[in-house]
Amino acid sequence: MSKGEETRHAILIRAAQLASEIGLEALSIGRLAREVGLSKSGLFAHFGSKEKLQREVVDFLVGFYQEEVVRPAFRAPRGEPRIRLLLENWLQWSNSYFGGGCPFVQMSAEYDDRPGPIRDFLSQTQREWLAGTAKSARLAMDEGHFRSDLDPEQFAFEFFALLLGYHHGARLIRDPHAEKHVRAAFEDLIIRSRKV
Amino acid sequence: MSKGEETRHAILIRAAQLASEIGLEALSIGRLAREVGLSKSGLFAHFGSKEKLQREVVDFLVGFYQEEVVRPAFRAPRGEPRIRLLLENWLQWSNSYFGGGCPFVQMSAEYDDRPGPIRDFLSQTQREWLAGTAKSARLAMDEGHFRSDLDPEQFAFEFFALLLGYHHGARLIRDPHAEKHVRAAFEDLIIRSRKV
Repeated sequence: MSKGEETRHAILIRAAQLASEIGLEALSIGRLAREVGLSKSGLFAHFGSKEKLQREVVDFLVGFYQEEVVRPAFRAPRGEPRIRLLLENWLQWSNSYFGGGCPFVQMSAEYDDRPGPIRDFLSQTQREWLAGTAKSARLAMDEGHFRSDLDPEQFAFEFFALLLGYHHGARLIRDPHAEKHVRAAFEDLIIRSRKV
Repeated sequence: MSKGEETRHAILIRAAQLASEIGLEALSIGRLAREVGLSKSGLFAHFGSKEKLQREVVDFLVGFYQEEVVRPAFRAPRGEPRIRLLLENWLQWSNSYFGGGCPFVQMSAEYDDRPGPIRDFLSQTQREWLAGTAKSARLAMDEGHFRSDLDPEQFAFEFFALLLGYHHGARLIRDPHAEKHVRAAFEDLIIRSRKV
């Protein structure tokens, strides 16, 4: 990476962390610039405007999510093993990279009632992840792991709901049992989905 | 209500709606004042400061939630009927009163990484609701509706996760099947919890 690319990358990483903690709308350009050692105008030289920075943060996070959660799951054989890896990768994603848990959970609440390009992009992305999860469930049916009368969209809804339940329990309530609960619920979901 | 109380109430209702849409931190006092037909200083005469207003909005919402979701559920017989009513009341709460769905979902994302009195109050309140849901499940076990080896905390986690899954689907993604999915998942949760 060139020096300019490195700076750009450092700004995006710090902005993504702040987005996970306080949100993307509440992101203060002054604070972000200070934290990466730039002046405000130095930061704007890289992104032009706050709106453009916000959009690039979301783009960056979507790519990062693909790399950390989605793509590694495809290393496992299709069907149940791949779905198990999706859970593991997501838990690691939510717990490891950002101070405030999964930034998409944060941004979903932030943008669900803020019409505009960021909302459209977020909602499109998450629609695709739900569809991708449903597709993974369909592959598990094809593989004979899951029963043939399973509703893959219903499976995806429940899988996603468990991640949100975990995030809420672990982040807001700091429930020490959140991980135990999400794992037990996931095992139960898998067992209910299996071929009998 | 006196004229002063009426104005106060109108401010709180409008602030709660805005909190549900854009959040409580992003709440602009100028916009709120304008929308209820007051000057900024006229609004501050009622609440003193933005922090105090935010705290009172949360107080108001906790009371409103008790009135609309929790208390009416206690009119149903304890056990499964009461738990069914909790779901119905919550769906109505999330869909009817606020432009942006359940304000607690919004505020949870907003405050989970913002230490301070509002975070403490929100997290305490939601811990109590989870405990209350677990207690309802325990009563359903006592009544013989639910099996005696059910884990009531696990039940509460899964129930809550479904509400969050619904909120995410209905609000961000505008999934037309969100209600169908949450109802199917809830029925399944109930069936799994029942005495066999």
